[in-house]
Amino acid sequence: MFDLIIKNGVLVTPSVTYRADIGVWNGTIAAIGADLGTEGGSIKDAEGKYVLPGAIDAHTHLAMPFGGTVSADGYLSGTRAAACGGVTTVFDYPMQKKGKGILETVKARQELCAPEACVDYAFHCCITDLNGGALLEEFQAAVDYGVTSFKCFLVYKKEGMMVDDATLIKVLLKAKETGAITNIHAENPDVIDMNIAKFLSEGKTSPWYHYLSRPEFVEAEADKRAVHWAKSVGAPLYIVHMADKEGLEAAVAAKREGHKIYIETCPQYLEYTCEVYKREDGRNFVCSPPMKGEESRQALWDAIRKGDIDTVATDHCPFMSYEKDWGKDDFTKIPNGCAGIENLYPYMLSAANEGKISFGRAVELCAENPARIFGCAQKGSLTVGKDADIVLYDPNLSFTVSVKNMHSDYDHTIWEGKTLQGYPAETYVRGKLVYKDGAFVGTPGYGRFVKRETSG
Amino acid sequence: MFDLIIKNGVLVTPSVTYRADIGVWNGTIAAIGADLGTEGGSIKDAEGKYVLPGAIDAHTHLAMPFGGTVSADGYLSGTRAAACGGVTTVFDYPMQKKGKGILETVKARQELCAPEACVDYAFHCCITDLNGGALLEEFQAAVDYGVTSFKCFLVYKKEGMMVDDATLIKVLLKAKETGAITNIHAENPDVIDMNIAKFLSEGKTSPWYHYLSRPEFVEAEADKRAVHWAKSVGAPLYIVHMADKEGLEAAVAAKREGHKIYIETCPQYLEYTCEVYKREDGRNFVCSPPMKGEESRQALWDAIRKGDIDTVATDHCPFMSYEKDWGKDDFTKIPNGCAGIENLYPYMLSAANEGKISFGRAVELCAENPARIFGCAQKGSLTVGKDADIVLYDPNLSFTVSVKNMHSDYDHTIWEGKTLQGYPAETYVRGKLVYKDGAFVGTPGYGRFVKRETSG
Amino acid sequence: MFDLIIKNGVLVTPSVTYRADIGVWNGTIAAIGADLGTEGGSIKDAEGKYVLPGAIDAHTHLAMPFGGTVSADGYLSGTRAAACGGVTTVFDYPMQKKGKGILETVKARQELCAPEACVDYAFHCCITDLNGGALLEEFQAAVDYGVTSFKCFLVYKKEGMMVDDATLIKVLLKAKETGAITNIHAENPDVIDMNIAKFLSEGKTSPWYHYLSRPEFVEAEADKRAVHWAKSVGAPLYIVHMADKEGLEAAVAAKREGHKIYIETCPQYLEYTCEVYKREDGRNFVCSPPMKGEESRQALWDAIRKGDIDTVATDHCPFMSYEKDWGKDDFTKIPNGCAGIENLYPYMLSAANEGKISFGRAVELCAENPARIFGCAQKGSLTVGKDADIVLYDPNLSFTVSVKNMHSDYDHTIWEGKTLQGYPAETYVRGKLVYKDGAFVGTPGYGRFVKRETSG
Amino acid sequence: MFDLIIKNGVLVTPSVTYRADIGVWNGTIAAIGADLGTEGGSIKDAEGKYVLPGAIDAHTHLAMPFGGTVSADGYLSGTRAAACGGVTTVFDYPMQKKGKGILETVKARQELCAPEACVDYAFHCCITDLNGGALLEEFQAAVDYGVTSFKCFLVYKKEGMMVDDATLIKVLLKAKETGAITNIHAENPDVIDMNIAKFLSEGKTSPWYHYLSRPEFVEAEADKRAVHWAKSVGAPLYIVHMADKEGLEAAVAAKREGHKIYIETCPQYLEYTCEVYKREDGRNFVCSPPMKGEESRQALWDAIRKGDIDTVATDHCPFMSYEKDWGKDDFTKIPNGCAGIENLYPYMLSAANEGKISFGRAVELCAENPARIFGCAQKGSLTVGKDADIVLYDPNLSFTVSVKNMHSDYDHTIWEGKTLQGYPAETYVRGKLVYKDGAFVGTPGYGRFVKRETSG
Repeated sequence: MFDLIIKNGVLVTPSVTYRADIGVWNGTIAAIGADLGTEGGSIKDAEGKYVLPGAIDAHTHLAMPFGGTVSADGYLSGTRAAACGGVTTVFDYPMQKKGKGILETVKARQELCAPEACVDYAFHCCITDLNGGALLEEFQAAVDYGVTSFKCFLVYKKEGMMVDDATLIKVLLKAKETGAITNIHAENPDVIDMNIAKFLSEGKTSPWYHYLSRPEFVEAEADKRAVHWAKSVGAPLYIVHMADKEGLEAAVAAKREGHKIYIETCPQYLEYTCEVYKREDGRNFVCSPPMKGEESRQALWDAIRKGDIDTVATDHCPFMSYEKDWGKDDFTKIPNGCAGIENLYPYMLSAANEGKISFGRAVELCAENPARIFGCAQKGSLTVGKDADIVLYDPNLSFTVSVKNMHSDYDHTIWEGKTLQGYPAETYVRGKLVYKDGAFVGTPGYGRFVKRETSG
Repeated sequence: MFDLIIKNGVLVTPSVTYRADIGVWNGTIAAIGADLGTEGGSIKDAEGKYVLPGAIDAHTHLAMPFGGTVSADGYLSGTRAAACGGVTTVFDYPMQKKGKGILETVKARQELCAPEACVDYAFHCCITDLNGGALLEEFQAAVDYGVTSFKCFLVYKKEGMMVDDATLIKVLLKAKETGAITNIHAENPDVIDMNIAKFLSEGKTSPWYHYLSRPEFVEAEADKRAVHWAKSVGAPLYIVHMADKEGLEAAVAAKREGHKIYIETCPQYLEYTCEVYKREDGRNFVCSPPMKGEESRQALWDAIRKGDIDTVATDHCPFMSYEKDWGKDDFTKIPNGCAGIENLYPYMLSAANEGKISFGRAVELCAENPARIFGCAQKGSLTVGKDADIVLYDPNLSFTVSVKNMHSDYDHTIWEGKTLQGYPAETYVRGKLVYKDGAFVGTPGYGRFVKRETSG
Repeated sequence: MFDLIIKNGVLVTPSVTYRADIGVWNGTIAAIGADLGTEGGSIKDAEGKYVLPGAIDAHTHLAMPFGGTVSADGYLSGTRAAACGGVTTVFDYPMQKKGKGILETVKARQELCAPEACVDYAFHCCITDLNGGALLEEFQAAVDYGVTSFKCFLVYKKEGMMVDDATLIKVLLKAKETGAITNIHAENPDVIDMNIAKFLSEGKTSPWYHYLSRPEFVEAEADKRAVHWAKSVGAPLYIVHMADKEGLEAAVAAKREGHKIYIETCPQYLEYTCEVYKREDGRNFVCSPPMKGEESRQALWDAIRKGDIDTVATDHCPFMSYEKDWGKDDFTKIPNGCAGIENLYPYMLSAANEGKISFGRAVELCAENPARIFGCAQKGSLTVGKDADIVLYDPNLSFTVSVKNMHSDYDHTIWEGKTLQGYPAETYVRGKLVYKDGAFVGTPGYGRFVKRETSG
Repeated sequence: MFDLIIKNGVLVTPSVTYRADIGVWNGTIAAIGADLGTEGGSIKDAEGKYVLPGAIDAHTHLAMPFGGTVSADGYLSGTRAAACGGVTTVFDYPMQKKGKGILETVKARQELCAPEACVDYAFHCCITDLNGGALLEEFQAAVDYGVTSFKCFLVYKKEGMMVDDATLIKVLLKAKETGAITNIHAENPDVIDMNIAKFLSEGKTSPWYHYLSRPEFVEAEADKRAVHWAKSVGAPLYIVHMADKEGLEAAVAAKREGHKIYIETCPQYLEYTCEVYKREDGRNFVCSPPMKGEESRQALWDAIRKGDIDTVATDHCPFMSYEKDWGKDDFTKIPNGCAGIENLYPYMLSAANEGKISFGRAVELCAENPARIFGCAQKGSLTVGKDADIVLYDPNLSFTVSVKNMHSDYDHTIWEGKTLQGYPAETYVRGKLVYKDGAFVGTPGYGRFVKRETSG
């Protein structure tokens, strides 16, 4: 009757935690029952384990050309690592360039991804140039294709990725019109460049000056501005990698007024502060926005607990040590980005295990909310009829992160040495086991493109 | 394998709505599945219907001595009406009196209720006198017995029900200590009495002066004060029948600061304004707190939508027309209270059906939240292992409320003539059908006492 | 041409500080000029000194029966001390008692005060009982007589001074109607009594428990409640001796909304915290409300700087050491009150001299604002036509307060040992020198009753 | 003894209004007295009149090249009109251009102004290009010269006047370092240009689209951004011509937190709304920012009353009718700017006369505050020692504005037909009569450069 029955586990939903069996048939959750018996193709006893929906990492950059190189994890290694961290759906960010179309851009990446993907995948499309307005006409086709979110950068001016306020508003409006949502990377480029020029002229080149070039108020300005435009034109907005208190507060205030403002943060902002940039290996922590002060870190946790932050994702974009070393004597030469795809769910679940948040809240942040916000109708919760993307989580394991036990291609990690309470024991994607007890057991190419719906 | 299978319905949870079958065995939800087959003692086809958790009316006064009489619905008629409105658990408010104990009080009511109850029932205990402090020593026993919530009145001074601020604080602290929660009826007695004396001396005796005696700011003061004490001593608080904007805002602000402040409102405050007191039959709408102005009504709906209000309950406390008539020439002689127990779920679900809120939100307000706040571990959601308290809701029915089609003992209703979009078709309590297509089909005495847990 | 010319001083107004001469004729300021010449009955060279309006101590209790005794300063010693501290007008608080009238009460105190007063004086009248409503009819006569402010206590229930909320509202409304203003002492009596009973039953009798009986939140509740009623009925309110942050914030928020809420604090709340109650001589600091925590102290200074606090006054109500000693073993037996009348202006001006605030702000808080709020048309600023109430302030003096150099009748002071930068050199009341270089040089009985106008 | 005695008038200061004589000697206020006698070179009886400090119009553009022409009032006609409106000091805005220095720019305008000025004058310098940073080195010299305020435009990108955020921050920091203050014109250029392009492409060319191109939220964004940078770097900021509610609220919130944010608005924003752009002569009202909706207008008055707005100035920049007509068929061709220099004080004093604000508040907004904020030590109040810049105001006059009774060179005015209650009867600049009963009686070239101090 079932292909797979996961028995005796404790199922977690945002509001209820309960003991039940899950029956999987044909890749979807066919039944949840007090006792589904043992007549299945495969029986898994989850006694003593939590049964969770697979996580959705809504923010990754795989095989991403950036900073003079390409991010260290390609689609294969990145999604393999995802599987091993309990992530069953990965969102990647293809980058539209001047003169190029949206679907053209997305499909080019999809071709690269399809044969390598170990878990399911979706695409947000970064918009960098409207091609004189013509690009706006492609939004509907993208939405129809299942790409229902776009991204604008308010920084990376020199890199040609930045859009001005007028372009942002055009994207916000067209996204709204087509039922899509706009993601935003919020930092202020002019002020960053001013700071960098000043520091370099003063010979201040250590990673600490990466932080000082982009301190709290430089991010906060752009957060506030993005929120302002979204509010003013009545369009939904999703702020990626929120890292500062002041911008967070502005975004939350707008949410409270009833505007559709969604907030994402990342584990690195919850765990680390700018103090890491004073470390010997500070360059390895260089990402944008940088980690901020302790006050911001506390504010992020507080917002996590109050329900003001909607999602936690990783901004996974690792670089090799030798690449990070390019900036040994000049922080501006350090490729921006850190690893995280395999650490997301274990980190947030460890926080639940330690009592900082509930398991339900961890599931909401990492699975249910990204599914809902981004229109992944088949994903995000342990519900009959949805894809059987399931993680068995052993709350009694203790796990210390090391580059040696990660499943990416990078050669170092900012999470090195972090000890977590509890760890995923198994990951299923559409009912198929892809990770078990520390080992990847899936198949490259098994992952499917997630055709998304418009979002609420 | 199942006693009952409800097939093909659309199940509603606060966050997910999906099509599935429910299998009931031995009074609990044994399984939820895409297709549970048809091997059950009873098969119910719910095609085209929503399948919802039974509602919990967290605020009723049955057979309640008040205003010189007794409320018109006893335990039998009240719980029968509940069943017919999709309410599967009713909370009643026994009233401890000077010199009496908590369990003594509760058990006396339980004895009356047990043989009559058509649905399950629980008790909050109203505290009116600490018996020199001795009563506080009984809280733990009450909690152990399954009564994990208490109530204080900040009004009804002359009636001997009011407690002063010091008593309230003692109750708040002892409730917190024992894992219970304190409910509060917030209005200011001195100012009400001042207003009443003034109006009567001026010959102003119509129901409109009931409202003017207890206008927005008179409720708001007590709301703020209750919130202040709860915040200050760090104890959880549940404000019953919130009806004014200013008090609501104060309570929400405290919630936002992280305090455990829960807010209940009632359908009458969402539907009506003080304008009803100008009607010929205004006295029938007399309850305390009275309905307020349109601004408050809008604020309550706004808070419903934003998630700031936690529960909707009824304060069901009807009186017969002849009793209401006592106050024809003097509003102070009108027994305070209105009917509502049978209208709660239909009203909120109709709002969902019309798009004012989502079905998930209606379920959260009327079932999941009261279950969680008040420790009803087996109630409140369609979850495997919980009691099979289920409502089949037909979204295509149109229903016009009349005292003629209600199942209470009262002889009039403030909801007369209200047309609702959609209506409950069947109600199940622990798997047993108690209501079907307009008719009560349950059994007095079937309802059980809900032994509650301490709440989070 | 002038009776007195004060030459070459630096005049201070809230907004402008400038060098000029002041010419006094017939007790009023007849001219202010760049050079008024030297043709006067008396010439005073104020070179190097600030010339300030005399301070108004809007809150004193002279010869006040309280705590089983009478406050240690009578009208003579109290106003003598005032003169020596630069205070040229003193407000006293006669206490209306059940069955007594307002003017009857005021005039009885006026008779005591008139022959002794060394500086000018005014009365706020405390209202404790409305005599069945008849008292309200006397408000107009009181206002006509020049008593344009009334006071209600929200505490001192057992002492028969407390009014309930209804009485407060009646006073607020009648005061508003007659152009008067209501002062409020805000603390919550029930909770204080609860705390006291608890501490005494536990044998906790040291002054520290005076503070713990009336901590921040106990004052804050009453602050908020008083603000709520004043806002709700649209009547002006003056909160005396604000000492806690939370109440302050509520009052400031209401001011910001446009309500006429005025806030007074006292030097003791700006200087000390509750830590003083842990001192050996803690009982000497016992007053109500008690000093609060450092956070409140900082908030008060912050509000002083932002313009949110309107006045600083003293609540001068000293008791002799032997009286304070009554409470050596029981804090409830300590008469509540401390000295301050002679320290007000020197303390605030020293703060100006040290740069914490401007001299203009000190003058505004201690002279101009109380004059304006309480309708003292002839007082409060160095303006042509106003009474020549003038203080010459030497910013270069250093002065250490001691009971030995004070001019009251008490035998200890909480200000003992406090060193101030700058000190008054001379005080003039209506042009007459009453204090000079440390010595009182005035005449008892010279002080006049200030007939006040209704306030804005 | 005095050159001039103004007798029997009622003097107005922000906090006190009183009857007194003013004696002027050598251009300054030498004395204020109850009766200064009649021994003066000139005696003026001001019985029945208010005696006010001359107004300071902190925002004018005289002989300003803009919009393809030059503003219609040169230094002569502009300051002549000023004198006739009770303005005794005018601030002009020289415009630094790429490659030019600050003092070079200021002095060039000063040369034009000096021989023509009918009242005193000061300069803010607009900064448009930092000349590679070199310009920052000139700030100190400018401050030493008496130019202690600078201005940045966040708009007028194509016109070469806009600065980016980095430049703004550099100016803010250098201004702060030298004790100067930065003025800001806040609107968002990209969004304006986007809107204009859209409207023109749709054939929407009427003045109504001037408003729709720059609606509330376009100004508000730049207000918020400017406030954000000023707060973040701790520098003082003066926002010119605030015209929208949302930006106002953000600025006020920052003030409340203790930041030195000053807010100016203009009479046109207090009197008119965007509805004027629907009028036949709508083009005559075209200025930037445009008038906004009624909600903003009300918010500005509310802030005036609450003390949140610091100054009212005019942004006087009139154009001739034939110039305004250039934009008859295309709103983008209308030169931006309106007349107002002669209407400022009469408008605000009429508001006082009608009871909307107090006379003291009008004086504070138009005289005392601009003097204080911009370091005009000798100006702004009726204080002994200050310049005898005095206006006699007749509260009983009724005056209807017409281009015919104005003293400028323009040929139309947005104030045509506005009837004011009360009007200036005489204006004195440093003791010299320059305006009397409707006629200019001063002398071009009499006005002096105001060398300003650094501001608080």
